[in-house]
Amino acid sequence: MITAIQEVTGRIAPPDEKATLRAVLRLNSLTKPPGSLGRLEALAVRLAGISKVEQPCYSKRTVVVMAADHGVCCEGVSAFPQEVTMQMAYNFLSGGAAVNVLARQGGAEVQFVDIGINGDITHPQLIDRKVRRGTDNMAAGPAMSRDDALRAILAGVQVAQEAVKNGTEIFITGEMGIGNTTASAAVLCALEGIPPETAAGRGTGIDDERLRHKISVIERALQVNTPNPADPIDVLSKVGGLEIAGLAGLILGAAALRIPVILDGFISGAAALVAKALAPESTAYMIASHVSGEQGHKLMLDRLGLEALLDLGLRLGEGTGGALCLHFIEAVCRIMREMATFESAGVSGSESV
Amino acid sequence: MITAIQEVTGRIAPPDEKATLRAVLRLNSLTKPPGSLGRLEALAVRLAGISKVEQPCYSKRTVVVMAADHGVCCEGVSAFPQEVTMQMAYNFLSGGAAVNVLARQGGAEVQFVDIGINGDITHPQLIDRKVRRGTDNMAAGPAMSRDDALRAILAGVQVAQEAVKNGTEIFITGEMGIGNTTASAAVLCALEGIPPETAAGRGTGIDDERLRHKISVIERALQVNTPNPADPIDVLSKVGGLEIAGLAGLILGAAALRIPVILDGFISGAAALVAKALAPESTAYMIASHVSGEQGHKLMLDRLGLEALLDLGLRLGEGTGGALCLHFIEAVCRIMREMATFESAGVSGSESV
Repeated sequence: MITAIQEVTGRIAPPDEKATLRAVLRLNSLTKPPGSLGRLEALAVRLAGISKVEQPCYSKRTVVVMAADHGVCCEGVSAFPQEVTMQMAYNFLSGGAAVNVLARQGGAEVQFVDIGINGDITHPQLIDRKVRRGTDNMAAGPAMSRDDALRAILAGVQVAQEAVKNGTEIFITGEMGIGNTTASAAVLCALEGIPPETAAGRGTGIDDERLRHKISVIERALQVNTPNPADPIDVLSKVGGLEIAGLAGLILGAAALRIPVILDGFISGAAALVAKALAPESTAYMIASHVSGEQGHKLMLDRLGLEALLDLGLRLGEGTGGALCLHFIEAVCRIMREMATFESAGVSGSESV
Repeated sequence: MITAIQEVTGRIAPPDEKATLRAVLRLNSLTKPPGSLGRLEALAVRLAGISKVEQPCYSKRTVVVMAADHGVCCEGVSAFPQEVTMQMAYNFLSGGAAVNVLARQGGAEVQFVDIGINGDITHPQLIDRKVRRGTDNMAAGPAMSRDDALRAILAGVQVAQEAVKNGTEIFITGEMGIGNTTASAAVLCALEGIPPETAAGRGTGIDDERLRHKISVIERALQVNTPNPADPIDVLSKVGGLEIAGLAGLILGAAALRIPVILDGFISGAAALVAKALAPESTAYMIASHVSGEQGHKLMLDRLGLEALLDLGLRLGEGTGGALCLHFIEAVCRIMREMATFESAGVSGSESV
C-alpha cells in the first residue's frame, strides 16, 4: 500500500511558473493601484500557478466531510458523548449541519464519507469507505495498525480521484468525529515536537479542568506509543485518527491532479501536516481558509508555511471555514475575468509606474 | 440645515433587546457547540438587534459609491492625478471597477453618486447630487464652507432615504476621490486628536518621501484651519471632503431607518467617525467589514468601538471590502434559518450544558 501512496506523491508537481507570471501581469493591468487588493492578489497568483491558467474558474466545488470515531473518547476528553458522531452523520446527510448551509451558499456539494464511524449508517448519499469501527484508545496503545492507517490514506486518495473524475475542480476538507481535536493535537505534538499544553485546545468547549485532563491524556498517548516523528504513518497509526488519515490522502490525491484544496481548521491542519510529511510539495496546493479558535492551529499553519485568509474565532470544524472561503476563491476568479484594465477603461496609471 | 440633520439623528434608536435575546437563544439551539461559529455568532446577534427580528434577511443590497474631488491634490499628495476621479467614474458606471465585480458577486446594486466631482459626468445611471466641483485646498484654507458640508451630509441622508424607499435592506459604503485618504487622515487627526504621522498612510501607494510630504500637508491644513474637535461640521468643512460628508449622511439616514450599514475602509471610517460625533448611537448600525492596509484605519475602528471581520491588506476603497463582507451577512442569515436544532436533528447536547 505504501507503494500506491508513493506513486501518488511522486506525481505532485510544483506550481506553473508561466501562469503565475501571467497572473501577476494581469493583476497589474487592472484598474486599481498595484497590490491594493492585498492578499486576494496573492491568492489569485497562487491559484494561477496551481491550475496552470491565468484566469482559473472553479465551478464544481466539493466539500469532503470525513467522519470517524476515536477510542480515546473513553478517557473523557470531549464535552460531547461519542454517539454524537453517529447522530451528526444523519444531520450532515439530511443537510442540517452548519457546513451544509455554508456549502449551499458557496455553491458546493457536500460528500459525507464514513471512514471509521463506530456504528452503521444507512443512507443513499453516504459514501462508505469505512476502514474500521473507530480507533482504539491511544492512551493505552496504538490507535490503529499501520495497515489501517495506510488503508485510510488510500481511501482518501480514491475519494479525491473519483470526485475529480466526476468534475470536481476544487476541494474543501471537512470532518466530524467526537474526540478528534485530541488526536489532531497528538499528531501535531508527535510530528512537530510541540508540547501537549501548547498543541491542545478546548475542542467543542471544555473547561479548564477537562483541558488539563486532555493534555495529560495526550502526554500518556505519546509516552505509551513513542511515535517516530520521521515516519508520518507511524504517527498517524499510533496517535492519529481515520478521518485525519483520509483527509491526508484526499490532499495528496488532489495535489497529484493539480486540484486546489481549501483547508478548514485544526483537524484538517493535522491531516495537512501528515500530507506535507509524506510529500512536502503538496503544500503548494493547500489554501488555508481560516485560523481557528482552537489553540495550536496557528502553529500548524506556520509549520505548513500557510497564512489563513480568515480569523473569525471559528472552532466548529466540519469544513465550515473552508466553505466560507469559497467566496474569496470566486471573488479572485471574477476579478481576474471581469475587471477593466487601465487601457480598456481609459484610466491614467499611477505616476510612479 | 442643521435642524434637518438633528431631526434625523433624533430618530436613531438603540438595537432591539428582545430580538437580540431571541437570536442568542436560537444560536444556542443549533447543532453546533455553543459559540463555535465565533464572530459570525456575534454578527448574527447584532443584526437581530438592528433589524428587530431574530432571523433577518437582506435581499436588496446597495453599495453607495460617493465620488468627489479634493483641492489638496494640487499639493502632490497622491500617486495618481486628479483626472483619475473622472475617468474612474465612467469605469464605475460601466461596471468595470473592482467594486462592480464584487457587488455583482454579492448580489448588490452599485449606486454611483457624484457629490462633488471636479467635472461634468453624463451617464443615465449617474445619481447627481453634486454640491460643488471638488473642495478647495485645505492646506491653504477651509476645504469648503459650513453650508457645503451640511448640504453634502443632507444629500447623503436623502440618498439613504430614497434607496430604502426603493427597497434597500442593507447598505455598503463606497467612495472614489483622488486625494481622499489625505482628507480622511486629517478628519481622524482633527476629531480624535491623533498626530498626522499616525493617521496618514500610503493611500494608492506613495513612497516614503511623498508620505512625509503628505504628513506635512496634513499638519499645515490643521494649523491653517484649527478645526474644532467638538464640532464635527467644523472639522468636515475645514479638512474633510464631500464624499466623507455624504457617507456620514448616508450612515445617519440608514441608522434612523434601522438599516445596517457595512463600512468599507479608511474613507468610510472617517465618515463613520463624523456620524458617531453627530449621533453616538449610530455606531450600533455600523458593521466593520475589514481593517485596511491603510495606516490609521485600525485606530479609527477602535475609536468607533468596532472590530473588523476581515484583515486582507485591502487598500483599494470603492466599497470593495464592504461588498466582500456581504457574504458573511448572508452566511449568518442562512445559518439562523437553515441549520437544524439539537431537537429537530435528534442530536445530544454538550454534557456541560
